[in-house]
Amino acid sequence: MSERETLSDRFAFNQATAKYWAMDELIAGCVASGVRHVGLWRENVAEYGLDRTAKEVRAAGLSVSTLCRSGFFERDGWFDDNRRAIDEAAALGTGVLVLVSGGLREGSRDIAGARRHVADAVAELVPHAVAAGVTLAVEPLHPMFCSDRCVISTFAQAMAIASQHPVGAVGVCVDTYHLWWDDTVLPELVAAGPRVATYQLADWITPLPAGVLTGRGLPGQGCVDFDAFHVAVERAGYTGPIEVEIFNDELWARPGAEILADTLKAFHRVVSDD
Amino acid sequence: MSERETLSDRFAFNQATAKYWAMDELIAGCVASGVRHVGLWRENVAEYGLDRTAKEVRAAGLSVSTLCRSGFFERDGWFDDNRRAIDEAAALGTGVLVLVSGGLREGSRDIAGARRHVADAVAELVPHAVAAGVTLAVEPLHPMFCSDRCVISTFAQAMAIASQHPVGAVGVCVDTYHLWWDDTVLPELVAAGPRVATYQLADWITPLPAGVLTGRGLPGQGCVDFDAFHVAVERAGYTGPIEVEIFNDELWARPGAEILADTLKAFHRVVSDD
Repeated sequence: MSERETLSDRFAFNQATAKYWAMDELIAGCVASGVRHVGLWRENVAEYGLDRTAKEVRAAGLSVSTLCRSGFFERDGWFDDNRRAIDEAAALGTGVLVLVSGGLREGSRDIAGARRHVADAVAELVPHAVAAGVTLAVEPLHPMFCSDRCVISTFAQAMAIASQHPVGAVGVCVDTYHLWWDDTVLPELVAAGPRVATYQLADWITPLPAGVLTGRGLPGQGCVDFDAFHVAVERAGYTGPIEVEIFNDELWARPGAEILADTLKAFHRVVSDD
Repeated sequence: MSERETLSDRFAFNQATAKYWAMDELIAGCVASGVRHVGLWRENVAEYGLDRTAKEVRAAGLSVSTLCRSGFFERDGWFDDNRRAIDEAAALGTGVLVLVSGGLREGSRDIAGARRHVADAVAELVPHAVAAGVTLAVEPLHPMFCSDRCVISTFAQAMAIASQHPVGAVGVCVDTYHLWWDDTVLPELVAAGPRVATYQLADWITPLPAGVLTGRGLPGQGCVDFDAFHVAVERAGYTGPIEVEIFNDELWARPGAEILADTLKAFHRVVSDD
């Protein structure tokens, strides 16, 4: 088996890339394209039904690479909601729950306090995650999301939280879109070893749209040096699925099968350059 | 003199906050409001005339806190343009030239190379800056500007460049808008001591507008913990002007005198809380 085929086997299609594709069509589309892994989102799963999704994904021979996403610890009810998310991940048969910490509470300027709360909240969830066999993958988001979406802004911050717990309990979600600008991230990735819980690809393109959430590019469209990330993640020892997760209004407007086809093309463009 | 009066004396109005205010009206407006320092922009100065601006600012009893801005080392002709900027700063009587490094060259993914080039470019400019008595204030911009405006994204990166040179030659421009999210910046500021070449205030508000350049808030409107920055900058030993520099389309649409009055109010809101 060539290296390229191996990498193809590792491709995972994150459902958010085709935000409006119905679950049954997504499953059928992945099977038709030879895709073996899908990353699912809680709201889509809830809408389609948790048990139904788990059953149909399994019947199709797909594995669920990650469940996105839990966290948002600044909100009331975070503890119960996160416990439910862990249970959902276990029901879907995935070992990885992506966790986005949430931002500052309305009117707060206490970013250090918010960050301490995230560390405390993760610690409170660890026993349930361990019991369920689910790794909490703390995801640092780009600092432009710091106030309203995620106070964990760097890989180092996520690692500082993860390293308080057993390797299987808490890891880090590595998303190139959020981390590419960081001048210290590559050696940190290598040193993180088994803490790399999942690896997601998206490219950085400008100008950013209003709200900055939906301006990601397919791999190869922007300025991210994917080769550098691949090498670092490989040296860390990560051998799991490689997800492509793109939030982009223009992409979302297209039919799901077309999005998947273009995502696969983009994936092969950036993983086979060597 | 009370502490509050001392801080008033340190207020500097950055011209970009009232982008469309004519230079002569800006000068008269600052004098009428008791403002002692103005931060000027090269394009505004060029339009009004360098010698004329220098003469009228001096006659009005104003000091020029900073000249904004030079850098953009990815562009052809950067060396001559930056030397001219140093000369302009000297002609205006300011000791601080703010330097924004520029982004990646079109089509480039070599961020490490771009950063090395910035360090080399600063080194090439140092002799001219020293001869002119002008400090190059390397400004880290928020990582959301990394690809297209400034590959220097953190205070630590700017310090790594500055610390290769004498203190009076290269320092760092501390702007709260760009640095507030960074979990390591406060102790780094304290440790930077005399490398803090200028201190600028702007607040972080969301949602960000398209292009993300013009979404800054007046101090107090957003989530920046100004007290924490004031303490750190003071512990670093910085006693110079404190600029307010806001890029905001709604603010820009208003008359200059109103903008200045509101900027002064906002300044006192965040510097007199203790």
